[in-house]
Amino acid sequence: MSLLDDTIGRIKSQDAGWRAMARTRLEKLTMPHWALGRLMDLAEDLAGMTRSIPPVIQRKAVAVFAADHGVALDGVSRYPREVTQQMVHNFVRGGAGINVLARLAGARVVVVDMGVAGDLSGLAREGKIVSHHVADGTANIAKGPAMTPEQARRCLEAGIEVALQLGKDADLLATGEMGIGNTTPSSAIVAAVAGVAAEGVTGGGTGVENTQFLRKMEIINHALEINRPDSHDGLDLLAKVGGFEIGGIAGLILGAAAQGKPVLVDGFISTAGALVAQRLSQASTDYMIAAHRSAERGHRIALVHLGKQPLLDLDLRLGEGTGAALAMNLVEAAARILTEVATFEEAAVSGANA
Amino acid sequence: MSLLDDTIGRIKSQDAGWRAMARTRLEKLTMPHWALGRLMDLAEDLAGMTRSIPPVIQRKAVAVFAADHGVALDGVSRYPREVTQQMVHNFVRGGAGINVLARLAGARVVVVDMGVAGDLSGLAREGKIVSHHVADGTANIAKGPAMTPEQARRCLEAGIEVALQLGKDADLLATGEMGIGNTTPSSAIVAAVAGVAAEGVTGGGTGVENTQFLRKMEIINHALEINRPDSHDGLDLLAKVGGFEIGGIAGLILGAAAQGKPVLVDGFISTAGALVAQRLSQASTDYMIAAHRSAERGHRIALVHLGKQPLLDLDLRLGEGTGAALAMNLVEAAARILTEVATFEEAAVSGANA
Repeated sequence: MSLLDDTIGRIKSQDAGWRAMARTRLEKLTMPHWALGRLMDLAEDLAGMTRSIPPVIQRKAVAVFAADHGVALDGVSRYPREVTQQMVHNFVRGGAGINVLARLAGARVVVVDMGVAGDLSGLAREGKIVSHHVADGTANIAKGPAMTPEQARRCLEAGIEVALQLGKDADLLATGEMGIGNTTPSSAIVAAVAGVAAEGVTGGGTGVENTQFLRKMEIINHALEINRPDSHDGLDLLAKVGGFEIGGIAGLILGAAAQGKPVLVDGFISTAGALVAQRLSQASTDYMIAAHRSAERGHRIALVHLGKQPLLDLDLRLGEGTGAALAMNLVEAAARILTEVATFEEAAVSGANA
Repeated sequence: MSLLDDTIGRIKSQDAGWRAMARTRLEKLTMPHWALGRLMDLAEDLAGMTRSIPPVIQRKAVAVFAADHGVALDGVSRYPREVTQQMVHNFVRGGAGINVLARLAGARVVVVDMGVAGDLSGLAREGKIVSHHVADGTANIAKGPAMTPEQARRCLEAGIEVALQLGKDADLLATGEMGIGNTTPSSAIVAAVAGVAAEGVTGGGTGVENTQFLRKMEIINHALEINRPDSHDGLDLLAKVGGFEIGGIAGLILGAAAQGKPVLVDGFISTAGALVAQRLSQASTDYMIAAHRSAERGHRIALVHLGKQPLLDLDLRLGEGTGAALAMNLVEAAARILTEVATFEEAAVSGANA
């Protein structure tokens, strides 16, 4: 049995018994009923995911999957393609947004080369990044499939391997990414899943202008037309119109779910990865926590299809895992209220009138 | 000159020069333009408030003002009035929601007795709470003014004193409160400011049922009718339909603003206090950060009148300062991105195409 099939087979739904135990305690806390709202929903989820009370959320890690895209050469981004590898160096030096926000969250950052067009073997040898390099960027989705089915499977298994590795000493995982042009394949995935044309899901990405924006939509519609991905088949969707880092993200989520660990899903690109994971295992959504609602237009519809309401809504559109790193504090808060807040009985506080 | 007048006189608008310096750096960070959205707006605000780059946000404190309300004896809450003092004991023992979330944020919790109906002098003597006890609860706003103009001034000055004391070793302040029945005076304040009847701003508070809810609205409308507060006069608004803890909150905000320190405004009751502060000093709003949008119905309209968009929206309706404690992490994140993220030049990353 392959690592992918084995991992999918190990994913179980959240545990109803642990959820019920959490709810029973949350309802007795010294506060009006469910007065911490979505933090309490999350606390219940965490108990169901981890099968423990309190759910331990101490050690945190964010995996930043980096890769390039053939379609980026068609001018869908305002940034030149070499920015992907330049940003990998920035991550390694600790100067990027994700480094700063992960430091604040007390989270480890692991950068994974999934297919950056450029030689990062030096960084990999020095142990500064993890290499699961599939190829020097995907093929151009405007001309054919992004990758072969075999490459798609390799991406997913690479993500699973990262999850298993990080899971050895992390309680909470998070997805992040870097890849110039990657809002284009992400929009294609979301459009395919939602069954709409590019116009319904495409945003400005890193800031393209009007004519470039129209061209980006044309490319996405054309990519969907020539590739005809099966929107119910995660592997096909990923191979036809995805990206290597998107596959890594989907794999990380599956690997986290198989270990019963919560995984924070960052913004638009990460949600495209989550949609791929959902197609491979509906139960994996039980372990996903949507970190934030991105300013990228298609994110709203992507989250609806994933069935998730995000924790934050701060007009972020950076990616890298920054929204996920910011949301870690809320996950930790949810875990703590479950056992650290006193019950009415423990604190000798009068309850509500019947 | 009184402490109140002196404090109001010292409040200056945010500094435009420091804001501009912050913006200049934020625009050069290795990310698409303003890609961290509202976190970057906040970073700019923090520089304008603190007149420093980076704005130091390390030491944090939340002041929890507690008081009782004459109107609570009319049955506007599901909880008996003694819960206010029971919760003060819970705060002191560290078992309440605010204790847990403040611990996570690394924030100090200071509990202030503004007028709890009950003897808390023992806790005050032991230094476990601060006493600015004005009276054993306000008078019933359904029968006349909540307090005398002199008492209103005392509340505001007490809040200012707390801000000055905390300001000695805190960079970021936050408001919190406890007072059974206090959504009723808060709704009255918001209704007066918004110029609408109770129906437009009243929510369920800690969870009142239908007939009790109608009665609560009747009481608020009646209180506004007999007291006729001047909605442009903060002192009159506070004295006629406010509460001692609401005055403390308004004072804390004024005191923070006078020191050039950011202050996180918690939920519905805190926002009522912020509206009182705004009426006393429009410039004080420059130092307010709305922590979250409460599930309490009137909070949305209160925030519109305050001119603030909240950072979080998690269906919280606990008060105590819990939403403010949760938002501290975001304020710290905003401060850090300003100087810790590398610029394009520093990181040798290519910029966007023109």
